[in-house]
Amino acid sequence: MPDRLTKFQDLLAARKLDCYILTSDTNIRYLINFPASESILIVFPTKGSIKAKKTIYLTDSRYAEEAKLGLNGIIVEQFTQNIIKAMFELIVKNRAPRSGTSQKAGFDDRHLSLNRFKNFEKNCPKSVTLVCENHLVESMREKKEKSEVSQIRECLKLNLAAYKYLMDVIKPGLTEKDVLLKLENYVRAKDAGFSFDPIIASGPNSAFPHARVTDRKIKNNEPVLVDMGIDIKGYKSDLTRMFFLGKMSNLYERIYDAVKEAQARGIAKIRAGVKAADVDAAARNYLESLNLAKYFGHSLGHGVGLDIHEDPRLCAQSGVTLQEGMILTVEPGVYLPGQFGIRLEEMVLVTKTGCEVISRPKF
Amino acid sequence: MPDRLTKFQDLLAARKLDCYILTSDTNIRYLINFPASESILIVFPTKGSIKAKKTIYLTDSRYAEEAKLGLNGIIVEQFTQNIIKAMFELIVKNRAPRSGTSQKAGFDDRHLSLNRFKNFEKNCPKSVTLVCENHLVESMREKKEKSEVSQIRECLKLNLAAYKYLMDVIKPGLTEKDVLLKLENYVRAKDAGFSFDPIIASGPNSAFPHARVTDRKIKNNEPVLVDMGIDIKGYKSDLTRMFFLGKMSNLYERIYDAVKEAQARGIAKIRAGVKAADVDAAARNYLESLNLAKYFGHSLGHGVGLDIHEDPRLCAQSGVTLQEGMILTVEPGVYLPGQFGIRLEEMVLVTKTGCEVISRPKF
Repeated sequence: MPDRLTKFQDLLAARKLDCYILTSDTNIRYLINFPASESILIVFPTKGSIKAKKTIYLTDSRYAEEAKLGLNGIIVEQFTQNIIKAMFELIVKNRAPRSGTSQKAGFDDRHLSLNRFKNFEKNCPKSVTLVCENHLVESMREKKEKSEVSQIRECLKLNLAAYKYLMDVIKPGLTEKDVLLKLENYVRAKDAGFSFDPIIASGPNSAFPHARVTDRKIKNNEPVLVDMGIDIKGYKSDLTRMFFLGKMSNLYERIYDAVKEAQARGIAKIRAGVKAADVDAAARNYLESLNLAKYFGHSLGHGVGLDIHEDPRLCAQSGVTLQEGMILTVEPGVYLPGQFGIRLEEMVLVTKTGCEVISRPKF
Repeated sequence: MPDRLTKFQDLLAARKLDCYILTSDTNIRYLINFPASESILIVFPTKGSIKAKKTIYLTDSRYAEEAKLGLNGIIVEQFTQNIIKAMFELIVKNRAPRSGTSQKAGFDDRHLSLNRFKNFEKNCPKSVTLVCENHLVESMREKKEKSEVSQIRECLKLNLAAYKYLMDVIKPGLTEKDVLLKLENYVRAKDAGFSFDPIIASGPNSAFPHARVTDRKIKNNEPVLVDMGIDIKGYKSDLTRMFFLGKMSNLYERIYDAVKEAQARGIAKIRAGVKAADVDAAARNYLESLNLAKYFGHSLGHGVGLDIHEDPRLCAQSGVTLQEGMILTVEPGVYLPGQFGIRLEEMVLVTKTGCEVISRPKF
């Protein structure tokens, strides 16, 4: 199996690009497995360029030495003053003869501020044409390799263990912050980190989909929403669980069942070839049939990998068709302001015939 | 004293802008003290607009309820589909009659991807003119208010205490990761966080200016570079200390003295009215006189506040003149590849007549 960089270089050749400028830290990390920061990766395609397959990592003195030691088969160039000038010099220097007077340099306009793009234009030599070609690396990233699935499974294993631990920990009288501290200690003792600041939202706080952790004391007969993800070596997980202490109200039970069923309908819809928007609709339409969709303001889910939120999105506006190997969250929620909110979040691996729920609690 | 938002609205009036579009989370947080995410703040100036002093926080359902409860005197608007369309609708709706047919909407092109800017242009009504006006909020942020200085002093206090703690902790035989774990426990027990992933670099690892923490065991007769910052309620500190175990080599002592003197010369140069580039030069020229400047690849320092790296920068390319109330790091370094690196970093508060080193260790 060709490595990621070679695959990407094939992609560039197919798009008839003479090189590609990467400015996203995560995309650079994905391609060359180096934790980039304020650096640029210039990749030349497998075919068409005299310097075929050349890859240049352009960085400053803070990272250059480490990069030289850590990167095999990749040229490390150090700039001192202006990274953009240095970048164009390297692009021109490695020009393929067949590209004639014009050299097409691809880039992704989502990973570049308007200010930086103006600097690109200002410094761009006449022989180079900037071509906006988005989503090239992301098209690779959204389909997970086997090793990536394993890494995410490892995150999920710890994520689930942490939730099991929380079942014993969450008690009336503790504050949300108390719970967070215990959770932090638990996770760090396993030599792992969080993939985002955990949400621990008790009682009415759970009605805020992105609640911050407060000093509120957890009471009896109320829910606690916990949304937490694990990060192990860059890969991530993302799961939400509802804890309940004491006696549930009828309303709570009714909403819980509705969210659970919405999630089941979303999951049942998922398989390679299905549109992301249709998965969102499957869950949302069910909630709508109960007149609850108005309390479900966010999208149904998102990809997870090196980023906690990545392509594809499960939402009405998505034009994406699901593919085998995508890993997605499925997380419908119903939030009743002033009362409570319920969100249930699993992670699934898309297969040819459906999906595997890779986050089902084993407890 | 007028509050930050009013000051900013005065600034908009002075620039003859009819409104300003804020897309930077940190700038929004600075102005309205709300931890924004994927939201937009629209601010109308004190004068000139019929809706003078109106401020609109535009967000989605995840944050809307919390924002409504947490934000006084600010209108919270919730969008469902397209935040950019919703933003322009609100801008047009609140148009001042005096602005005639054209309404100038300011924005900062550093806080907007090229992709998003294209969406701005696509959705921008004819009656609105987008005007790139950078650095407006940053011009306020770079001069710290008294309350901000206090918050940063609080971070420094814990930062110094943590370094005192490390003096007892760092021992040959421990790995860098062991030290990190102890440091983490210490800081979290004080209910604080790190402002960035700490650097703990022993022996030759210290020659990487931005080294990652490794499993390397700390040995006798070698330095350990620790670069660590504290975050308390969003404000930050940033300090580097050299620890040394055993007997220093003559070379180490010589380099240490050189870096120390370079730092002293930089600090001596700092006062309101002096150019940032001259401060950088004061330290760099000294190292150059010892033929060491080639081992000092990064800039001399940077502002610290809500961001760990913020304006102004102490570097040769800076056009900034220092002002009273700025808080800066002064951090020269000399890195000898394969051998060791030495960086010494203090934080200073710029005053009319010089500066106060607010990070001098009290131990």
